[in-house]
Amino acid sequence: MSGNFNGLLKAQWKQGRFLCVGLDSDFEKIPESARKQGIRETIVSFNRAIIDATHDLVCTYKPNPAFYEAHGDEGWKALRETIEYIHSAAPDVPVILDAKRGDIGNTNVAYAESAFDHLHADAITVQPYPGREALQPFLDRKDKGVIVWCRTSNGGAGEFQDLAVDGVPLYQFIARRVAEDWNKNKNCALVVGATYPKELAAVRAIVGDLPILIPGIGAQNGDIEKTVQAGKDSKGQGMIIAASRSIIFASSSADFAEASRAKAVEFHDAIKKSL
Amino acid sequence: MSGNFNGLLKAQWKQGRFLCVGLDSDFEKIPESARKQGIRETIVSFNRAIIDATHDLVCTYKPNPAFYEAHGDEGWKALRETIEYIHSAAPDVPVILDAKRGDIGNTNVAYAESAFDHLHADAITVQPYPGREALQPFLDRKDKGVIVWCRTSNGGAGEFQDLAVDGVPLYQFIARRVAEDWNKNKNCALVVGATYPKELAAVRAIVGDLPILIPGIGAQNGDIEKTVQAGKDSKGQGMIIAASRSIIFASSSADFAEASRAKAVEFHDAIKKSL
Repeated sequence: MSGNFNGLLKAQWKQGRFLCVGLDSDFEKIPESARKQGIRETIVSFNRAIIDATHDLVCTYKPNPAFYEAHGDEGWKALRETIEYIHSAAPDVPVILDAKRGDIGNTNVAYAESAFDHLHADAITVQPYPGREALQPFLDRKDKGVIVWCRTSNGGAGEFQDLAVDGVPLYQFIARRVAEDWNKNKNCALVVGATYPKELAAVRAIVGDLPILIPGIGAQNGDIEKTVQAGKDSKGQGMIIAASRSIIFASSSADFAEASRAKAVEFHDAIKKSL
Repeated sequence: MSGNFNGLLKAQWKQGRFLCVGLDSDFEKIPESARKQGIRETIVSFNRAIIDATHDLVCTYKPNPAFYEAHGDEGWKALRETIEYIHSAAPDVPVILDAKRGDIGNTNVAYAESAFDHLHADAITVQPYPGREALQPFLDRKDKGVIVWCRTSNGGAGEFQDLAVDGVPLYQFIARRVAEDWNKNKNCALVVGATYPKELAAVRAIVGDLPILIPGIGAQNGDIEKTVQAGKDSKGQGMIIAASRSIIFASSSADFAEASRAKAVEFHDAIKKSL
């Protein structure tokens, strides 16, 4: 369906695209004008409009399955159809399933099948907690991106992530392990919230040019200039800078798609200016 | 649909039931004799046979969504119908969605809707990594169990979980936080693998009578006597001892349901003897 995640991503970066649109398509927030007969049709039609309006501006799309699972099998169908649409409308734009999955190995085999073979995502976000050995079924999928949750964007992220282990905060310890020990197939990346530019700079200093997915600009108020300064790699690339609600729900009126494009242009330009 | 998770669980413990059957119903492993027309029908019919054969022996059922998601929306329907069947066939047996979910708060609202309002599970397993603040949408559901992954059962569990923080291993630090700080609604529990009886004893010593879900007897070779000695609370209860593959795939022949019952009886009796 699509090529190697890292290859697709690097081609986007070369074009100067670093923005990732999070398709957190909460049904309740979808504008009246985008509503169709059923839940599935409404979500898919809304997502198609957003994708049509933004795909020349983004390096990746990132649907979060939570907002689809909340509607059961109809939501699940909407998720699959959304990813299918991205692959057909924008075949050069890889799709990150922002699923934060993580279980023991036997179970992760099934999660990898779900993400990559059923949904046809190009990458998945995963939990670090069970360790590398458990996550091997994801890591073994050489063409797929495995993006490990490292420093999360939420206000209470520090409860465990900032605990000192071996003289460094846990999230830095994890960043080093992923960069130095987990990345045998060169398919790893990390998640670090834009809401924490100091922590982002610390991770960048540890991991060299490893790709970093950086959510939290937009609704979570991460600062774009600080994010780019802290997050860029040695080539001035290496970043997937994600916004969700602020783009896809930029307007609740009939102009929602144009408004999403306007917001994406604003973020794209602000990133470019900060590089 | 069903009552308070803790109330249902305690009523089961009073009846001397501590076994949890994990419905990790991997389609490929379902015996020929249980096969029906479609994937969904096969999984549901297999699960119904296992539930009919075991429900008087268990304190909970624990489907893991990974094995359902691997089949997309048809799998998701099978998961919902399985939980629906448990509630109708065994209304006093609560259902744990073994989903290991965990994201930032906004997203966890949608995951809680999926688990509790759409699938009608009574409890969910969650990731500790994002911290309490992010998990609040689960914790706020007073009638639902929130079971935090603490010491996982896999071989490489120690990579991060055993790191010393504040002079104790991370998993013990997390256990204390959950027991002392997260449990305002008295709906928390922990997961500690049966494959680590010493770690289980250490957690029990920290958390008082907090319920502990203990996977890893059976296929993962956790020792039942050691598990019970390490895991029981001050009342000789407090445990949800889980086995999945060893029970549901006890036989690949037409006698699979009887074989699952025989294995469940064996585990139930071994737990009772060890108390």
